[in-house]
Formats: sequence, C-alpha cells, structure tokens
Amino acid sequence: MTEHSTMNGAESLVRTLVAGGVDMCFSNPGTSEMHFVAGLDRVDGMGCVLCLFEGVATGAADGWARMTERPGLTLLHLGPGLGNGLANLHNAKKAGTPIVNIVGEHTTQHLAYDAPLTSDTEGVARPMSHWVHTGRSSLGIAADGAAAITAARTASAAGPGQIATLILPADTAWGPGGVPVEPLAPPARRKLDEAELIRAAEALRRGPETLLFLGADAVRADAMALAGAISAKTGAKLMGRTSLARLERGAGHVPLPRLPYPIDMSLDALKPFGTIILFGAPDPVAFFGYPGKPSRLAPDHAAIMPLADGTCDLLDALERLADLVGAKPADAVRASLKRPELPMGALTAESAAAAIGALLPEGAIIIDESITSGRFTGHLTAHAAPHDWLQITGGAIGIGPPLALGAAVACPERKVVNLQADGSAMYTLQALWSQARAGANVLTVIWSNRSYAILTGELMAVGASNPGRKALDMLSLDNPALDWVALAKGMGVPGLRAASAEDFITALREGLAHEGPFLIEALI
Amino acid sequence: MTEHSTMNGAESLVRTLVAGGVDMCFSNPGTSEMHFVAGLDRVDGMGCVLCLFEGVATGAADGWARMTERPGLTLLHLGPGLGNGLANLHNAKKAGTPIVNIVGEHTTQHLAYDAPLTSDTEGVARPMSHWVHTGRSSLGIAADGAAAITAARTASAAGPGQIATLILPADTAWGPGGVPVEPLAPPARRKLDEAELIRAAEALRRGPETLLFLGADAVRADAMALAGAISAKTGAKLMGRTSLARLERGAGHVPLPRLPYPIDMSLDALKPFGTIILFGAPDPVAFFGYPGKPSRLAPDHAAIMPLADGTCDLLDALERLADLVGAKPADAVRASLKRPELPMGALTAESAAAAIGALLPEGAIIIDESITSGRFTGHLTAHAAPHDWLQITGGAIGIGPPLALGAAVACPERKVVNLQADGSAMYTLQALWSQARAGANVLTVIWSNRSYAILTGELMAVGASNPGRKALDMLSLDNPALDWVALAKGMGVPGLRAASAEDFITALREGLAHEGPFLIEALI
Repeated sequence: MTEHSTMNGAESLVRTLVAGGVDMCFSNPGTSEMHFVAGLDRVDGMGCVLCLFEGVATGAADGWARMTERPGLTLLHLGPGLGNGLANLHNAKKAGTPIVNIVGEHTTQHLAYDAPLTSDTEGVARPMSHWVHTGRSSLGIAADGAAAITAARTASAAGPGQIATLILPADTAWGPGGVPVEPLAPPARRKLDEAELIRAAEALRRGPETLLFLGADAVRADAMALAGAISAKTGAKLMGRTSLARLERGAGHVPLPRLPYPIDMSLDALKPFGTIILFGAPDPVAFFGYPGKPSRLAPDHAAIMPLADGTCDLLDALERLADLVGAKPADAVRASLKRPELPMGALTAESAAAAIGALLPEGAIIIDESITSGRFTGHLTAHAAPHDWLQITGGAIGIGPPLALGAAVACPERKVVNLQADGSAMYTLQALWSQARAGANVLTVIWSNRSYAILTGELMAVGASNPGRKALDMLSLDNPALDWVALAKGMGVPGLRAASAEDFITALREGLAHEGPFLIEALI
Repeated sequence: MTEHSTMNGAESLVRTLVAGGVDMCFSNPGTSEMHFVAGLDRVDGMGCVLCLFEGVATGAADGWARMTERPGLTLLHLGPGLGNGLANLHNAKKAGTPIVNIVGEHTTQHLAYDAPLTSDTEGVARPMSHWVHTGRSSLGIAADGAAAITAARTASAAGPGQIATLILPADTAWGPGGVPVEPLAPPARRKLDEAELIRAAEALRRGPETLLFLGADAVRADAMALAGAISAKTGAKLMGRTSLARLERGAGHVPLPRLPYPIDMSLDALKPFGTIILFGAPDPVAFFGYPGKPSRLAPDHAAIMPLADGTCDLLDALERLADLVGAKPADAVRASLKRPELPMGALTAESAAAAIGALLPEGAIIIDESITSGRFTGHLTAHAAPHDWLQITGGAIGIGPPLALGAAVACPERKVVNLQADGSAMYTLQALWSQARAGANVLTVIWSNRSYAILTGELMAVGASNPGRKALDMLSLDNPALDWVALAKGMGVPGLRAASAEDFITALREGLAHEGPFLIEALI
C-alpha cells in the first residue's frame, strides 16, 4: 500500500469519512485541527464550509444531514469550541440527526499540562452526544472515525441517527496513519412483533377516538402515505409532534396537524382521544412545567400505547399495519394545490404568511424558527406547492440560519426559505456570512417584532404577573432596534425591508428570484 | 418578618445576591427564569443588562468582575443556554474571576419527562465550573445562592475567584421563599511560611539569573509596586504570564514584560534563567503542543520554585519578601509618560498602535483580543497614560466585545478601548447591541485583516506545510469581506472605516470623544 505509507492520521481519517459518505465538513478550526485542514486538500471528495462560529457549524451539519440522510460533519476546536456548538447539537440530538463531530484536542503529551485552552473536552461533549471517544493513536484514528460513523448512523429514540463526537489529539492527526477503515453497518432497526401490530390495528379500527401520534421518520413522505391510508381506512386520527425534524408537505402530500405548543391548546388537542398510539414519538409532554398544569399532556382517561420509537423499523411497521387494516396507499387523502390569495395592506404575521404560501416555489425547503410569528405559516402553506419543512427540535434557539445553510449546501438546486424570529436569529447571525461565501440559495425572512415575544406569554403562563420595567426590558429587543438589512449587508448578503404587504410581496419575488442568499426584514 | 412572608424563592435569591454585593446581572433569560426576571423589579439595587447571546452574558460578567473585584452574575436558560456561555466561562475560569451563574431549569417534576429542552444541565456546567449545585426547594434557594457567592469568592490557583453555577428549577423560583441569607466569608488565602519566603529571598538575591514569574493578582498595582521594589533591589527579573486577567500599566506603573505567545520566542525568553520562582502563575507551558517542541517552556537547567499560586495571600508574601531583601517601595522603577509620535501614511498594526498609544486617555481600560494584530500595542502603550489592560485568558476567542461591555458597565466614568481581532469579534458581535442599549462607553477598534491570521502561522508551526486551496480557504475571512461599519450600524453603534493613519487618527479622536459605543474598522 505505497499510496498510504506516507499518510498521516488526519488524512486516514478524512479518507475514512469520505468513503463512509460523510463528505461535507462544516468547520471552525483552530491550531489543533491544522493537519485535518491540510488533509482536506489531499483527499478528493470532501467539501468544506467555513463557519465563523461553532453554533453555525453544528446547526448547518444538522440541516445538511436532514436533507441528505447521511451524517453531517463538523470540525471544532477543543472544549470551548465544542461548547459553542452544544446548543445546536442539543437540537440535532432531539431531532435524531446523525452527526459526526471531530473535535481537535491538545497532543496527548500536552494534555498533562494545564495549558490555557485545556479543558475536560469529553465532559463538554457528553451531555449532547450519544457517543464520545478520544483518539489514542494516529494508527488507530481511522478506525475511530469509522466507529464514529457507525455510531452516528445508529438510530435513536428520536430519529434515524445519533451524535458521535470523536476527539482528535493533534498528535493522532500528525502521526503516521493507518489505512482508511470502512465503517460497520449500524444495527438494523427493530422490526415489531406481529402481536404488537395486531393490538395496534385493533386500536386503530376504533376510529376517531384513536390517535396515531407521529414523530421521527414516521412523518417522512413514504411513511405518511401509509399512515394517511391507515387513517382514511379506519377513521383513526394522525397528529405529529410539536417539532419535527423534517416533514414533506403541501400539495400532493398527506396533511399532518401538529400538537400545538401553548400548554392549554395542547391539552385541548389531545382531550378527544381514548387511545394514543406512540409511533416514533414519546408520550406527549409540555415544553415547560407550569404552576398547576400537568407535564404530561394526554388526558388521564387515554390509554397510551407505546408502539414504536425511532429505533424501530417504522416504515416496515406501517406497511404491515396497512395490510392488517386493509388500507391501500391510494386511500390516503392528500392536500390539494390551493395557494392563498396575495394579501394587501398591512404587513402582519398573517399577511406575510399568505404571501409566502402564495409564492412558495415547488420543492422549496422551509426552515421554521418563527416562534410566535409563525402561528399562521403552517396553515397558509398547507396547500402551497410541495415543500420540505424543517423545524427547531430541541427548543435551543438560534438554529434557523445554520439549518438553512446546511440544507442549501445539501440541495443547491432548491430554494431554502428561512422563516426566522429576530431574537433567535441573533444567536447565530454569523451563518449569513457562510451563506454568502457558499452562494447558498437561502431567502431569510426575519420576523422583526423586536421582542422575545414568546416570553411575554411565558411570563404570564408561569404566573409572574405585573411585570415591572426591568422585567419588560428583558423581553424587548428594541432600543436600539436591530437593523437587519445592515446586519445582512455587513456579511455580504443583500436585503430589503418591508413594512406593507405590497412591499413584502415585491421583496419576496426579488428574494426568490435571486441566486444566492437574500434577506427580508419583515416589520410586523 | 411580614416583609418576607410573601416572598417567593426567586425574590429571596435576588435579595441574597444584592446583599452579597452581586448586583449586576448579565442575562439572557427564557421561560424557566421568568420569576427571577419578575423579581428584579421587586428588589432595589439589582442592575440588569440584556444580552442577545449567552456568550455575551458570561464574558460581560467576567469584565464587570475584573473591574469591580466582586462576583459577576449571569442569568442563563437551561443546559443549551449555559452551553452557549461556556467558552467565556472557560476564559473566566482561567482568569480566576469570581462568577455566579444562575441557570434556570425545568421544574423538579417536569425534569422526570424528556421535554425538548431537557438536558444534563449539571453535566454542561461541570467542565467550566468549580462549584455546581441544583436547588432543591424554594425555601432553601436563598441559602444556595449564599453558598454560590462564597464559592465564587473563594480564591483558585488562577486568581481571586471561582466559577459557581447554581441551577434554579422553576418551582424553586416560584415557590414560597425563605429569608435572604448572608454568605459566609470565603476561606482566607494561605499565608506563606517564613521558611518558604527565606528560600525565595535567597534565590532573588542571586540577581538577574532569577525570574519572578507573575500571574493572578500578583500583577495588580499594589503588588507590582512591591515586586518592582524587590527587582530593583536584587536585580532579579520580573515577567508576567502570557495572558493576564488585569494589569495596571502605563505611566507611573511598574512595567511588566510578558512571556511571548509564539513557541520559539517563549523558549528564548526563559532561556537566561537559572531559577524561576512561580508566584501566582504556573510552571510556564506552551499554548499548544508542537512536533519536536517541548510543552514546558523553562530551560532544563532552570530550578523551578513553586512559591505561591492564586490561593495564597500574594500581597502579604510580597510585603514580607520585600522586607527580607530590604527593598523599599520607592526603589521600584516606574514607566515614564512618553507617548509615541502620531503616525502618518499607511495604516498598519504598528501605526495604529502608535496612534492609540499617543491618544489613549488617562484611566482608559484596554481590552486586548488583538491576537496577531496586537504585536505592537503592548510596547507602544507602555509609556502611555496610565490604564488597565484586560486580556483573553483561556484562549477561547470571542471575549473582547463582552469583556468591554462588562468593564464599561462597571466603570461608566472611564473609556474602554477594545482592541479586537475581526475573526474573534465575530463570535460575540451581539455584544455591540448591549453596548448600545447600555450606553456603554466602549470604543471598539476592529483589526480588519480578514483572516484567521494566527492560523497561517500555526499551520506552519505544526508542520502542515504546503497548504492547498481548501486549507487556505479555512483561514481566510475574505470573500465576502466583513463590513464592520454596517454590522455596527445594524446593532445601533456608530462607526467609521479607516484605511490610512490620518483617517485612523481622526476616527480615534471622534470615537474617544463620543459618549457611548463607537466602532472603528481599521483596514490593516
């Protein structure tokens, strides 16, 4: 193997990753990763997107992986760099997204000294990773990389993947490498027993008092076609989790209502059901605990049937359930194409949503981090042209701009529309720069309400009434108002501000037609 | 105690903090912290600065604490929010800064369910905290807060404080509170034995072959006056750690050279010494491990005398050492006032530094996150008007803008000058908005070299030679160039761009005269 005899550990790792289909690196490197960076040029097939903050890298890897169905890859710098990426790894973990993090570390020898950047990197990784490993030798680092890929591709309860963090001491990168290693296949997803399915089919046949509560990849188009058929045949209802990693929807797709976020609405939504079948989704639980309100959202009288989580073969189970109840794919009710009218007059969350529903191009990818401003976008795009819908899954705000970056890099031929709350956008606004550099086809719509509007509601919901000036100041993003067009310009992204529905439509048309990133500040 | 009978846990905690001198809260709150937020208005004396990203809150708390010598305070939201703050907590930990983090958490009951925002919050806290505790009851949360203050005020090896993280389940905030609790005094710092001091005095008397290697609060003005006297009397040399939390310098202060960052320069700097006395500083160690280079920087022939770390009473030790060697404070050599000439012509890192040295107002606070662009600022401000100098201490970039915010809030009557590398500024640029809202008197100078310039050197230093296009792309911040004046405008901060020394001087004069934040993009 002459070709490999001069390979260092970093190169053996990069080759292992590329061969394993993990071939787009969202990176924010430092000194300890320089050999990995140098290795990028010696290996064909590894793409690389520089991110100016690690939360951008982890969120973008999530978006890329949700769209490609392959593990997303990040390159991060030591414990503090990984720390900056944790919030979006939390979201990815809750989405069940497969991600491989390569985290550079001091040399094994140097770790014995308390250098300024020394920290407990494994400790930082553990809370948001399913799998953590520190490389011990340059000869073994390719095998470590292969094990990370297998771990990332192993289904978790939440979805088809896991977070795998491989810590790469600098000497394991620059020392002599072994040959690239082919990752083992992940464990097969569990097929349900016939008896479990028969019991579920009985419950489904009871019709509208039964809810099939869906999450993970049970909401993907192929699975939804089957779920829709089962629902049409039995009368049982379908509902998705509040936050879904990826939903294909709009004209031609089986519609899926989602469990609402506000505590009282979510309790009401589940009240009608006597049986709730959990299928790729957990027993529904409130986002937060509130005084005098339950944490579990299902009514006390409902029987909970935990049929399958994300570690199960959900598609196989749906096929067999459809057979058991005699449902045919053609039975499923699908959304018709029925675009909203173009709005006129005041720009509001509702009129803006109508414009988006009307003008959304076929095959668009909507990134939804709208928070409060998004309450109209769901139903006003329900009959729009077919599109993907990616959400914030773990409640850690600041995922939208990076998720949009990753999705756009994964699908350069599609238009990504990032519906983005202003407060949340501020966490990872650096993603705009990477969007500009990558020429990413992202249209960002900033819902500029100049407040953490959701917290005004939450302040009341937790019973913290009569807020004073200091409290209200903590919920307001005004004084000074953020100028999103200037912020976008600062990062090389053109933008427009819209204060009326007509302005917004003009801006939306321009942004959708524009090649590369564009931003609209919607003053709602 | 009628006054307290209706107090909830949150209010008892806020009152405990204020009474303990922890009275400026840098916050990024969410739902679980709403009662703490509401409590701010019910308690006099607690200031509050909203930060639009948690890394801003933690860095600002560090800056405030370095200037006030009291614990800085943050309010953060759950595990992911704390994760966003970890990098600057890492820097604060390495600085020995006292910080109390209040991290909101789900209610105790709700934690049993796997809600979207549930994570291992203690696990996230631990790597960057000396002390971690989760509140168990609303009646006990004031005592928990008092314990956090005591922990924060306990000296660590690195300096006068520690990182204390108190996790606040929402029900411990909204449940009935007890009375506020007065924190215990922290343990007294250890006084050195006479025998240790006598041995050190002997080494010092050997003159210039002995180095007194300084860190922690041994570099503060009162301590430096004594160290300078000892050096003048004995001929022993003084040197500071590469990164110092806070150094008072310029005209009238005892000058302190610092150990250089580049590995070869740091090895050369220590080569002359036969004895190195560690005084508030660890055995000097390289920032990173490099192939074929040692991790420890002291020459093999040098005797290392670990006299005292930050947990010792350093001022007492210096007083007694001065007595032992017969040094009088008046012996110390102090820097004269000798401002550089105003530069003309090209704007370079050197000419810009000269302009800063020439125009720096007395009592300014310099925040130094210049990275490569700062190689001239140290000596070109050495004879400037007296000022404080605060540095990035843990190597986790993105501390400058928040540190400047915190220092400015602590010292509203002083001008803060943040010398800021562009790549590092991008991590926490949200701090500019908080500077604008707080009217913080911060002049930010962005060294706009449009690259991670330090990594170009590091790529060579680790032997990753002949970088290709992909590698070089990972080190460049160009394409598109960041427009810092637009970014500042977007956050409500006025700014100017300077491309010549004359432009820079004009902008500097305007920025120094301006009340409130101002930004200069220095194209170097």
